[in-house]
Amino acid sequence: MSESKELRAAIAANRAFYEALAQGDLDAMDVLWATTTPVLCAHPGAAVLHGRHSVMESWRGILSRPTPIRESSVQVALIRGIAIVSCIEHIGDGSLAASNVFIWEDGAWRLVHHHAGPLDLLEPEASTPGSGHLH
Amino acid sequence: MSESKELRAAIAANRAFYEALAQGDLDAMDVLWATTTPVLCAHPGAAVLHGRHSVMESWRGILSRPTPIRESSVQVALIRGIAIVSCIEHIGDGSLAASNVFIWEDGAWRLVHHHAGPLDLLEPEASTPGSGHLH
Repeated sequence: MSESKELRAAIAANRAFYEALAQGDLDAMDVLWATTTPVLCAHPGAAVLHGRHSVMESWRGILSRPTPIRESSVQVALIRGIAIVSCIEHIGDGSLAASNVFIWEDGAWRLVHHHAGPLDLLEPEASTPGSGHLH
Repeated sequence: MSESKELRAAIAANRAFYEALAQGDLDAMDVLWATTTPVLCAHPGAAVLHGRHSVMESWRGILSRPTPIRESSVQVALIRGIAIVSCIEHIGDGSLAASNVFIWEDGAWRLVHHHAGPLDLLEPEASTPGSGHLH
């Protein structure tokens, strides 16, 4: 597959992730996660979860209702057979920075890692690296 | 290299990252980042930065002074030649969940991605996945 096709497929997989979240579709979410390697997931405000069982249990709770979420500013870095997709998540008035890491498995990009954390969009000075009280 | 050696080397590289941050050592930080692939970095509260130049510029500002930081709860997932290291960062009274993705380059693990976001450790109910107002 050409690199441009790989990029488009990664963006589509990322899109499917947010559609599953928006629709509260646990089956669609389950299909999106890798089954042949370890996976991990850091929800906003929470420590990193390790292992498919823990990660899918967390999604079971989250997907019990739809989440009005959409993504923007999607960018893909293809690095040695993995795709790291970054984007901004919009949920109501809140915005989050998200990193989604995919591997190629069974003919599709599958998630091995998701990390989302709040963006300080209302305080631009705090979102400048180095200016905040944290690193 | 055996898997246990790869794991130990990944933990050591992760350690070196936080030492560079704690000491405000830009040269040490520079060596830790990959040079042969795209890199990206999401500082707390900020959108994801893409490209080595942008990422190192952000570190130049952050490392202009030492950051009293230490890491705990370090876990490593080796996935198809990459190492995804998760940990908790402690800075003063603040805690953050961090994901650090490394590739093997020139005989060492080098960072291709860092993502850190605040942990709601003072509000345990909000750190339970699915119970917060965000996902």
